[in-house]
Amino acid sequence: MQDNDIEKLIYLLSKLPGLGKRSARRCVLHLVQNKDSLMNPLAEAIASAADSIKICDECGNVDSSNPCHICTDSKRQYDNICVVEDVSDLWAIERSNIFRGTYHVLGGTLSAIDGRGPADLNIEKLLQKASNDDVKEIILATNATVEGQTTAHYITERLKHLDIQITQIAHGIPIGGELEYLDDGTLATALKARRSF
Amino acid sequence: MQDNDIEKLIYLLSKLPGLGKRSARRCVLHLVQNKDSLMNPLAEAIASAADSIKICDECGNVDSSNPCHICTDSKRQYDNICVVEDVSDLWAIERSNIFRGTYHVLGGTLSAIDGRGPADLNIEKLLQKASNDDVKEIILATNATVEGQTTAHYITERLKHLDIQITQIAHGIPIGGELEYLDDGTLATALKARRSF
Repeated sequence: MQDNDIEKLIYLLSKLPGLGKRSARRCVLHLVQNKDSLMNPLAEAIASAADSIKICDECGNVDSSNPCHICTDSKRQYDNICVVEDVSDLWAIERSNIFRGTYHVLGGTLSAIDGRGPADLNIEKLLQKASNDDVKEIILATNATVEGQTTAHYITERLKHLDIQITQIAHGIPIGGELEYLDDGTLATALKARRSF
Repeated sequence: MQDNDIEKLIYLLSKLPGLGKRSARRCVLHLVQNKDSLMNPLAEAIASAADSIKICDECGNVDSSNPCHICTDSKRQYDNICVVEDVSDLWAIERSNIFRGTYHVLGGTLSAIDGRGPADLNIEKLLQKASNDDVKEIILATNATVEGQTTAHYITERLKHLDIQITQIAHGIPIGGELEYLDDGTLATALKARRSF
């Protein structure tokens, strides 16, 4: 129906998460209508990012250098490792600008249903890093889902022979959250984990 | 926080319709994780489309040739022009595979609120084409919105001195639509436009 170049571009864009054929078509029209301000810069940005982006061997972060800028930042606390499921979680914590330690990206969770075992995750590298005498604390920041918690328990089991503090980020009522609208699970967790005020 | 290349890519992707910062970030991670199968091909596809894509001087279609492949297709009925608001409408009609005439893209609608007058639309070119003796029918396929209908009326006014049949695509109950769930406007239109069965 349309041109080959356009068809191909729609097809590739529709492979992006959250985009289908219809929204990909809208994107293509938007691109064509903003050729100089968006289309050409985007082609260049993707090409240059594809050239420069690497996955950090140390922590699994996505960055233009390997090791990544976090792992090579001398101001970071190397004795403090935050374990996350995915790079997007790492980025989310970095955006909060509160954590000054380093990270370790697992690359997913254990999942019996999807057949992902420990060997499919980046766990051995974490054990290696944890065996290092300098490491004092491992913060588990996997998602508050069944898989995330299973993974956190598994890692705790594997680490408990080491003399390291293992902590987990707090689960409870999100800031701004109203009790009325929260699910029972969150409320129960928040109540159980109450602290002196 | 992240790398400059990545930040720039996220920024540009978030300019696409339907994508925000958050979904752009997900897209970037997906791209990075599928560098060979998606990221590099996408960069090439955008660059090559940016090079090749033109806007047809005849009808306003987006295509890799100018005039576009529809305007140069000898099997098309040149006496039959379908007037649409946007290229996306043209593509939608093409996908239905039912129309064998040619198109004319207005590039929007008249809108008092947004301050778009006739001079902002591609109307003069339509009048020129319509003055051609060969043209027998102009099909108005603007959207069934107030602006779309205003635009259709305006075009009809400008064309009525010519000896051309001016038609409009039917408005009514969409195929598969259930009366119960349709709005009053559609039902009223469908009733008024009833035809013998």
